[in-house]
Amino acid sequence: MPVPAEFDQLRVVLAATRNPLNIGAAARAMSNFGFAQLRVVNPYGIAFREARSAVGAPGLLANAQEFTSVAEAVADCQLVVGTTDARQRELQHRLRVLKEGAKLVRKQLASGPVALLFGSEKRGLANEDLSHCHWLLRIPTREEHSSMNLGQAVAICLYELARESHEAIEPEKLEMASAGELERITGVLLESLRASGYLKPGTTAPTEEKIRRLVRRFKLSAVDAEVVLGMLRQIVWKMKSS
Amino acid sequence: MPVPAEFDQLRVVLAATRNPLNIGAAARAMSNFGFAQLRVVNPYGIAFREARSAVGAPGLLANAQEFTSVAEAVADCQLVVGTTDARQRELQHRLRVLKEGAKLVRKQLASGPVALLFGSEKRGLANEDLSHCHWLLRIPTREEHSSMNLGQAVAICLYELARESHEAIEPEKLEMASAGELERITGVLLESLRASGYLKPGTTAPTEEKIRRLVRRFKLSAVDAEVVLGMLRQIVWKMKSS
Repeated sequence: MPVPAEFDQLRVVLAATRNPLNIGAAARAMSNFGFAQLRVVNPYGIAFREARSAVGAPGLLANAQEFTSVAEAVADCQLVVGTTDARQRELQHRLRVLKEGAKLVRKQLASGPVALLFGSEKRGLANEDLSHCHWLLRIPTREEHSSMNLGQAVAICLYELARESHEAIEPEKLEMASAGELERITGVLLESLRASGYLKPGTTAPTEEKIRRLVRRFKLSAVDAEVVLGMLRQIVWKMKSS
Repeated sequence: MPVPAEFDQLRVVLAATRNPLNIGAAARAMSNFGFAQLRVVNPYGIAFREARSAVGAPGLLANAQEFTSVAEAVADCQLVVGTTDARQRELQHRLRVLKEGAKLVRKQLASGPVALLFGSEKRGLANEDLSHCHWLLRIPTREEHSSMNLGQAVAICLYELARESHEAIEPEKLEMASAGELERITGVLLESLRASGYLKPGTTAPTEEKIRRLVRRFKLSAVDAEVVLGMLRQIVWKMKSS
């Protein structure tokens, strides 16, 4: 898919991430879906250094910017959206389901920078972090197990953002077999069924019609029809020649 | 979100997974979105044992079933969908974008078991694995970086399946043939092609895989599969008895 120009306006902000694998996984998903601006806020020192060697998107990781507060990391953004699994009790923000929220983010990206903020693996976003957000985004999960892996949560959010950006790829028109070809197959199939004794001599029209309908239900492409016809012809030839 | 009853019909099948973290991540995403049936095919022994202690969904992992072939792992499924990043050049399957493919999977789930198949981290699905698939699913990514992390790919597919789960979905009315039945048809068809001389003795695996894919494209209902199997058996009997 071609990457829409406005994707460059998204800043993925990871706050207080502990596990270097999660920073690496976030970078990889960003690269998969065409987002380039990664910002990290107070990652566990070692986590960030180790992530720099993670597989998948080394350039993106090398260009990641490091900040010491969420305030600085989102300073240039016109919209700041926090992510939450809504375990957090007294949410004082408007909470949007990802599907709806992503639409608003896409709109805003077309006119200016947007920050998408992810908290730490253990605790999510701190209240201080949340206070920088305009509203919150939630990935709809089971209530009994709403805590997602950080790398997976980032991937799903970015997938949803990119989801509508590539309509109508691969229309794929498979050429279907013509009625004439299907009728030839039907004919040879009937012949093979008679030769094998599956159909007794003097088959009635209803039986033939049943077989004809069966062949139509196979939904054969033109190419496959050719192959099937060749197989059946060889089988009939073999039965009749022996 | 309440989990739709038909989610129990999905089998997430991980083939030849190497990294235990990925098995754990897949299990966690399954638990997040309400899917319970995990199957693993020849995981690196140690990968599976280590995954059993992964965070997030211990019960689900403990109940995971282990198989030694994809054929066995999908035998009870009426629809087998492979996932690919389409690096694989000569795809001989219909390729659907996740958004569209997920709709078809949802429909089929309402009437019977579906397998969603993921290959190894390094190589994706092998040709032999692909030959068991009815069609393939692709997560739309940048062409320059289409290779996704396995745990993230699983999470995104399950998110998309669950995404519309509030909306009513009309079940597929026709009961489709199971993968086991299709494999039986493939076996008898191969027998008849050898007996007729259509296939020369010592057929290579690629030819068998071609025939296996052909049979999957017929989209056979359970009832029609029974009929076709009967026809082929009679034909083989006739050729061998004369």
